[in-house]
This record gives sequence, C-alpha cells and structure tokens, in this order.
Amino acid sequence: MRHEPNGLQAPDRPWRSRLHEVIFEADTFAGKAFDLILILSIALSVLAVVLDSVASVHARWGDELLIAEWAFTVLFSIEYALRIVSVRKPFRYVWSFFGMVDLLAILPTYISLVVPGSQYLLVIRVLRVLRIFRVLKLANYLNEARQLTAAMRSSRRKITVFLFTVLTLVVVLGSLMYMIEGEESGFTSIPQSVYWAIVTLTTVGYGDISPITPLGKALAAVVMILGYGIIAVPTGIVTVELSRASAGRISTQACESCGAEGHDSDAAYCKHCGARL
Amino acid sequence: MRHEPNGLQAPDRPWRSRLHEVIFEADTFAGKAFDLILILSIALSVLAVVLDSVASVHARWGDELLIAEWAFTVLFSIEYALRIVSVRKPFRYVWSFFGMVDLLAILPTYISLVVPGSQYLLVIRVLRVLRIFRVLKLANYLNEARQLTAAMRSSRRKITVFLFTVLTLVVVLGSLMYMIEGEESGFTSIPQSVYWAIVTLTTVGYGDISPITPLGKALAAVVMILGYGIIAVPTGIVTVELSRASAGRISTQACESCGAEGHDSDAAYCKHCGARL
Amino acid sequence: MRHEPNGLQAPDRPWRSRLHEVIFEADTFAGKAFDLILILSIALSVLAVVLDSVASVHARWGDELLIAEWAFTVLFSIEYALRIVSVRKPFRYVWSFFGMVDLLAILPTYISLVVPGSQYLLVIRVLRVLRIFRVLKLANYLNEARQLTAAMRSSRRKITVFLFTVLTLVVVLGSLMYMIEGEESGFTSIPQSVYWAIVTLTTVGYGDISPITPLGKALAAVVMILGYGIIAVPTGIVTVELSRASAGRISTQACESCGAEGHDSDAAYCKHCGARL
Amino acid sequence: MRHEPNGLQAPDRPWRSRLHEVIFEADTFAGKAFDLILILSIALSVLAVVLDSVASVHARWGDELLIAEWAFTVLFSIEYALRIVSVRKPFRYVWSFFGMVDLLAILPTYISLVVPGSQYLLVIRVLRVLRIFRVLKLANYLNEARQLTAAMRSSRRKITVFLFTVLTLVVVLGSLMYMIEGEESGFTSIPQSVYWAIVTLTTVGYGDISPITPLGKALAAVVMILGYGIIAVPTGIVTVELSRASAGRISTQACESCGAEGHDSDAAYCKHCGARL
Repeated sequence: MRHEPNGLQAPDRPWRSRLHEVIFEADTFAGKAFDLILILSIALSVLAVVLDSVASVHARWGDELLIAEWAFTVLFSIEYALRIVSVRKPFRYVWSFFGMVDLLAILPTYISLVVPGSQYLLVIRVLRVLRIFRVLKLANYLNEARQLTAAMRSSRRKITVFLFTVLTLVVVLGSLMYMIEGEESGFTSIPQSVYWAIVTLTTVGYGDISPITPLGKALAAVVMILGYGIIAVPTGIVTVELSRASAGRISTQACESCGAEGHDSDAAYCKHCGARL
Repeated sequence: MRHEPNGLQAPDRPWRSRLHEVIFEADTFAGKAFDLILILSIALSVLAVVLDSVASVHARWGDELLIAEWAFTVLFSIEYALRIVSVRKPFRYVWSFFGMVDLLAILPTYISLVVPGSQYLLVIRVLRVLRIFRVLKLANYLNEARQLTAAMRSSRRKITVFLFTVLTLVVVLGSLMYMIEGEESGFTSIPQSVYWAIVTLTTVGYGDISPITPLGKALAAVVMILGYGIIAVPTGIVTVELSRASAGRISTQACESCGAEGHDSDAAYCKHCGARL
Repeated sequence: MRHEPNGLQAPDRPWRSRLHEVIFEADTFAGKAFDLILILSIALSVLAVVLDSVASVHARWGDELLIAEWAFTVLFSIEYALRIVSVRKPFRYVWSFFGMVDLLAILPTYISLVVPGSQYLLVIRVLRVLRIFRVLKLANYLNEARQLTAAMRSSRRKITVFLFTVLTLVVVLGSLMYMIEGEESGFTSIPQSVYWAIVTLTTVGYGDISPITPLGKALAAVVMILGYGIIAVPTGIVTVELSRASAGRISTQACESCGAEGHDSDAAYCKHCGARL
Repeated sequence: MRHEPNGLQAPDRPWRSRLHEVIFEADTFAGKAFDLILILSIALSVLAVVLDSVASVHARWGDELLIAEWAFTVLFSIEYALRIVSVRKPFRYVWSFFGMVDLLAILPTYISLVVPGSQYLLVIRVLRVLRIFRVLKLANYLNEARQLTAAMRSSRRKITVFLFTVLTLVVVLGSLMYMIEGEESGFTSIPQSVYWAIVTLTTVGYGDISPITPLGKALAAVVMILGYGIIAVPTGIVTVELSRASAGRISTQACESCGAEGHDSDAAYCKHCGARL
C-alpha cells in the first residue's frame, strides 16, 4: 500500500482519476457496474457468514463457505488497496466512517487465523451495504435520511437527559426489587435485578425473571405503568423535532414569474404557474 | 369465461350494464342487496374455514363444513365469472387488487384437491370483506382511510430508510450476541440470534431465547433501550405526515409527466418537472 | 320504588329537592359529605370483594367479608332507591350511564344467591368511583377529560379503519402461521394462531406459543416489525387530534382594556394587562 | 451539626462563604474539583454496593467492599455536615430534594448496623449523580431538562385522568378474567388477575400467567389491542405539550397570588386571578 504524500486538489495522473471515478463515483456506466457488483458481493459474503453459523449448513457446506469467505476477503482486500491508491488523501479515507468499515470488513478473516471464531465479526460487512443509497442515486432517500438524522441530532440533548433519568431509575428500582424479592425468585444480585428492571420498563418482558411475592408484583406493576407512560417522552421529542425538520422543507423562495411563495425546498418548478424557480 | 375484445367506453349491451350495476355498484336496491348478501357469505365462509381448523369442531362437523366450503367456492366462482362477463375491461379487473383477491378466494379449494391442507389459504377471503366500506356508503370512512394511506405513502421513503437501518442493526447485534452467548444459551446460529434481536428490539420479548451470561444480558439491555427509543422514529414520521394530511396539505395526485408524488393539494403544476397536474 | 309520572321542570315538593341536592350535587356541605362518604364506601366495598378472592384471606375473614358485602349492598340499594325517588325524571336516570352502573353495583350480590361466584362482578362498583372527579369539584380535570374524550371521538373513524385493517391482518397472518407451524408447535387451530398473531403484533409476547421452524420464525419476525411499525398509526391519529383539541384552547376573545388577543379559553383575566375579560 | 439561627442575605463570615463556594458552586477551580471528586466518589460507592450484592464478588471481596462502604459513608457524612454548616438557611437545604437525597445516601449504612440488609438502599446514592448536570455547566442540558419537566407538569392533569381510567380498567378486566379463567390457569385471586391485566395492557407480557380457555384468550386479545391502542394517549399528550414547551409557549412560573401554573411565557398577569406575575 503506497501512501501519497501530496494532498493537493491539482489534477492527478490520469489512471488514478479514472480508477477513482470507477470506484468512488456512480455516474459513469463503469462506476455504476462496479458499485452494483460490489453490493452483490457484500450481500453474498454476509449471507455466507450467516449460513456458516448454522450447524447443519456448516457440516454440509463448511469447506465451500470457507473458500468463499477467503475469496471475498481477498477481493475486498484488493478493493481496499485500490481505494487507498486511487484517492488523493488516503489518510482521510482510512479514518472516515466508510474507510473504517471497509477495513473492519476484511480484518476478521485474517484474525480468525489466530483467534478462531472471530470470523463471525465479518457480518460487519453488512454496514457496507449502506452504500446502496448512493449507488441507486436515491437522492430523495438521502434527503429523507438527512431529515431523520437532523431530527435525531437536534433532539440529542433531550434524549441524553431522558436516558440518564431512565438509567438512574432502573438502578434504584432494581435494587428495591432485589431487597423485596431476594434470591429465591431469581433476583440473585443487584445487576440481575437492574437487568429485570430494564426488561420490564422497556415492556420487553421476557419472563425469565419475574416477581413472585405480592409486594414484588405490586412494584413490578408500578414499573410497567411507568415504562408504558414514559415511552411517550422519546416519542414526543422525536416527533417535535421531525415536525420542525419537515417544516424546514418549505423554502422562502418566491416564484419570479407569479410571485407565489411557500414552495417546498426540493421544488424545481413553481407549483402555481409551472415556471422554473 | 369469455374475454371481451372491445375495451371502449361506448354504451354496451343492456343486460351487461344492468349486471354491472348490480355487481359492482351499490347505488340501486339490487346492488346494495347483492353486496350485503356477498359480505355475509364472505364472513360465513371465513368462519367455516376458521372453525374447521379446530380439531374438536372438525371431528363433529367436518363433513358439513366441507360441503359449506364447496358451496361457497362454487358460489364465489359463479360471481367471479359474472364479474368478468359484466365488466367492460375484464383484463384490467383481473389484474386489479380486488380482482386478484377474488381469484385467490376461490383457488385454494380447487388446489386442495391436489395439495391437501391448502384450503386454509381460503381465509384470504377475509380481504374481500374490505369491500364493506364501499357497500355501506361510508364515504367518510373512505376519506379517513385515504388520509391514512396518503400519510403512509408520503412517509414511505422515510420508513424505508428506517427499516433498512433497523435490519442492518439486528444483523450486527444478532451476530455479536451469537459470539457472546453461544449455543448453550439457545443462540444456536446467527439467523436464530437475529431472530432474537428482532424479538427484543421490537419489545415483543417471547423469552424462548434469552441471554444467560452477564455480558449477554448487558448487550440485551442495550438492545432493549435502543428498541424502546427508536420506536419513536416511525411514530414521529407517521404523526408528522398525518398532521400534514389532516391539514389537507398533500394530495394523492401523481404527476402524469414524471410520476412524482407528494404534491401540495393546491398545486396546479408539478414541482419537479413543471408539467400541468 | 315509586316512579314519578310528572317530568316537569316546575318546582317540586321541598323534601325531594333537598334530597336531590344532597345526593346529586356537591355544592352544599351535606352534599359534599354525602359524596365523600359514598366514595369511601365504594372503595371499601371494592376492596372487600377483591380481598375475598384471595384464598388465605377468604379462609380467615370469609364470614366478615360476606357480612360487609351484604351491608354495602343494602346500603347501595337504599341509595339507589333514594336517587330514583329524588330525581324528577327517574327513567332518564335509570337509563343513564351512572344509573346503569349504580344498578350493576348492587345486582350481583342478589344474583349470587342463585348463581354462586357472580359476586365478583361487584368490582364493577369501581366504575362508580369515577364520580370522584365531580365531588372534588375538579373542573380542570373535567376539562382535561373532556379534551381527551373529544380527541378520541373525532379520531373514532380513523381508529375504526385502523382496527378493521389490523383484525383482517391478524386473521390472514394467523392462518398462514397455522399452515407453516402446525400443531406440534402449539398452533393447534386457526383461532389459536390468530391469538398468537395478536399477542405478537401488539408486542405483548407472552411466549406461551412461539414459532419453532425457521420459516415460522421468519414470518414471526415480519409480524413483529409490522406491529412495531403500525403502532405509529393510532399514536399519530391521537396526537394530531389532541393537538387540535389543545389548539382549541385559545379563544378568539380580545381584551377590552388593551386589545390583546390569543387568550386561553379558560382565561378570566387578560394576561397582558390583568383586566377582567 | 450546628444550625445557624440567622437566615439573612447579609455578608457572612468569610470561611463560610468560601466553603459554600467550594461545596455548592462550580464556578471556581476548587468548586469544580470538589464536585468532580464528589461525583466520582458517588459512582464508585454505588458500584461498590451493586458489586457487593453479587454472591461470587461478595465471597471474594466482601471485607474490602464493607470497608469501602464505611469509608464512603463517613466521607459523605462529613460532606453533609459541611453543607449544613456552610449554607445560610440550613433547614431549607435539609428539606430540599437534594438535602433529603444527601441524607438518605448515608443513613442506610448506619441503619444496617441494626437491620442487616438495608445497606442495599445505598443505591439511592445514584440520585446524587444527577448533580452532574450542574457540575459540567451543562446549561443547555438543564434547559432541555426544564423543557421536559415543564411539558410533564402541564400534562400532569391529563395524565392523572388517563392513569385513573387505566387503573379502573385493569380492576374490571382483571376481575372478569378471574371469573373466566379461575384458579387452574394461575388466576388465583383478583389481585393476581389485576397484575396479569397490567402485564398485558402495558404490552410487557411476561407469560408467567396467561389464559388457557378460549374465552379467556378472546378477552386477553381485547385487552392487548386496547393496550396497544391507548398507549397513543400518553404519547399524544406529551407530544402536544412538548411541542408547546418547545415553541417556548408555557412558562414554569406559578402565580404567587393563586398558585395557578401553565401560564404562557409572554404573560405578565395571572390569567386566573389577574395578579401580577
């Protein structure tokens, strides 16, 4: 792997810019084809890892899946090297989100030579599939994803406060339950009871641990109603922020032809007179 | 079954238009009576299929229910034939949603002659009951249903992004859990663990598989709180869109030129291509 | 029990209007005292029924609780008779919501003479406690309750459409599951499978019946994600309606003193200048 | 512990005001250092209590953890004394929320000398960690927390009505279930059945008690769909209030004259009694 010392915006050697276009862009035919084959390979390689974990499949097809795994890993390693070679600022790529994912998508196979079992980490490859949005040129989907992310980001602080309160709550409630129910009911320690409190407050309710004494059941009922009620809080937070993000869809632009306002921010033509905005 | 070659809007033979009025419309007395009897038959035939699956009922009334099933199937077959005969564009009806449902509502009985057990597919007949909204002339209900559908349609993309993220998440979380817990805890394969992740993230929590090791329980707690939190996202999306649909802001109209949807209800021109709506 | 033939608004015999004031109103001291004692009696009588159902309590205090039950029933019967006597339009009271509840609150004890076990229906007395809102003169609470009810009423149709769709869905999904899993997995009949579908779609997840085959688990995963998603629909509906009901809190009244608008509908004084509205 | 008789705002002895600055404020370096060390101590002391409840840890490190517990308790006792000494109005501090928590955070250790087992109540110390928001000068977080609290406070009455209705509902539904299912299915008493109704209505669904008879399953299905639907109500309430709080419309100010809350943030006069805010 060669590291490029020059991080300039100046035109580069032609083979590299062509390589870059094929690997990183999806505008040309070659670029699109490359991305589609890549995503197919990713899907197949994840499927191989998932299937290999099923005992009956492993017994029957274990060797073939091992070969497939190595084939995909070699393929993705070459692709990773090409990405580093073709990009002008390799370090920036390596430390970017997709750069890390691309590396994590090949490492486990090599590590599994030393630490058996780690090959299941390869499912992290599934994250690479998120590239699909770019490939399919789903600008609209990207836009929606951006709205969701914006809503999440601006409600980050409210959600932190909420989570902090919930965590404090489950520690206190779990400890109370530990004192009420004790070890005979399966509440063997405070961490175990806190686990129960989370299972109950989030309304998951496995039932692997559940209160037996009347007092314990009464407290459990309180926890349930609490959990049933406070789910309203994150929902309310996200709804309000999404509502704002969605309201941000209306641009302040006025039509030059008819003067109408209130166009959506993704509008290219005036909805009233059809003139270009 | 005769297929009509002429798909014109011109006036047709009188018996056919009368038949069409009775079968497809609900404005005349005959049309209303036909629809009401039809819906009653549908409800009864679904009830027959459902009851027949109960062992004790089958032992006692099996023969009667078999006769009823065939009677309903013959009845619905005649009705299906009449629908094809009476409509001016039979192919369009056959391939429409209700055309498909009408066919699927009679096929399983015939197929059960060859493949026993397939008669339970007859419950698909229950979908035909959705016609009830038209019969009862519940224009208001239709309006509400349309608002709900419009909200769903315009939040389609956001929900796709959300579902895609959730699916990626459960694959990664399930695989992690498979590595942490292993086979002794019931996490026998990655698909099984992904199933567990879905059961937990959606807060269903059967408890048929649940973590045993402390690390597994810690990860499970994270998954639960995650699931408890991100349920806010689809709720927020639907609420915002429903709020817009309810304010009468989005029309269900698609642009005939570029196919784009989600236009404001006061839009006269497509905001994407400028064509007249 | 005497039934009054005259249903006029004209002034009545004085003892009746005084009785009416004590029993039905909560403005005078006597009326308030009556209502508070009544609510206490109701709470105690419900507690007696609930406690009597606990085996250990019944064994020890069964006789005392039986006496209490009869005492409360006789008391409530006298109260019911007095209500009929004191009100000007007895039939209207008898058929009103609270009239029915008052009757249902005494009937089970008498019926239990003939049909043992029916005395547990006495818990319906708990509905009488809803009177508490009136007693405490919680006008604000009544106002909030009215807002909630209004939101519910105006989203009634959307919720009907939603429920109808959900019911259709669980019948189809339950039947599919019955065909996939079969009797060995506990899906012994279609009704049983529909019950499973409801347990899963609503994210309750008892785990008393759960899929065993891979295909069944895959379908179950779809049902869960569906249920996790469509809970957004009723939430969105109620939120939008509540938001409207809450927006209705702003009156159109302008302050006569300073002309400011945008006062809440329960405002008695101008929030800007403090003048009486 | 000395109680200060003078509750004036006048300048105090210098050592006290310096102590106050260190202990109660987080503006100076000493104050910040004190708070950070305090929060670390709290976290460690909670961890010690939690770990001590795990049997294997207790067997191995029991003595060390006992010493740590006493060390933290003595430390926190000194801190509590210093707080009382340094503050100008000690009684006000003692009866404030954090004053109570600070006391409850040391009491259990002393009580455990008399009543063994009560030391697990020490996890209440975790509430002291809530101070972290002030320490980190997270004014923004405090602002978000205030918005959440304001939304909660102004939806208090709606939520009370909702909870009251839910409680009435589970008592009636639980009793019905007790009569339908009886003792063989685990519905051994009405309280037990009410517990089941809460487990089901909140969609927790442990599965420790679940209906067996067809009629019981039918009623359970109704309860589930009810619970699935009415979760929309608290969510709607909180969303609407949060949306108002977020729009900056409600202030947290209470009228000093009549005590009414829920004033608009631009209000200058109480809308209920007309007094200046």
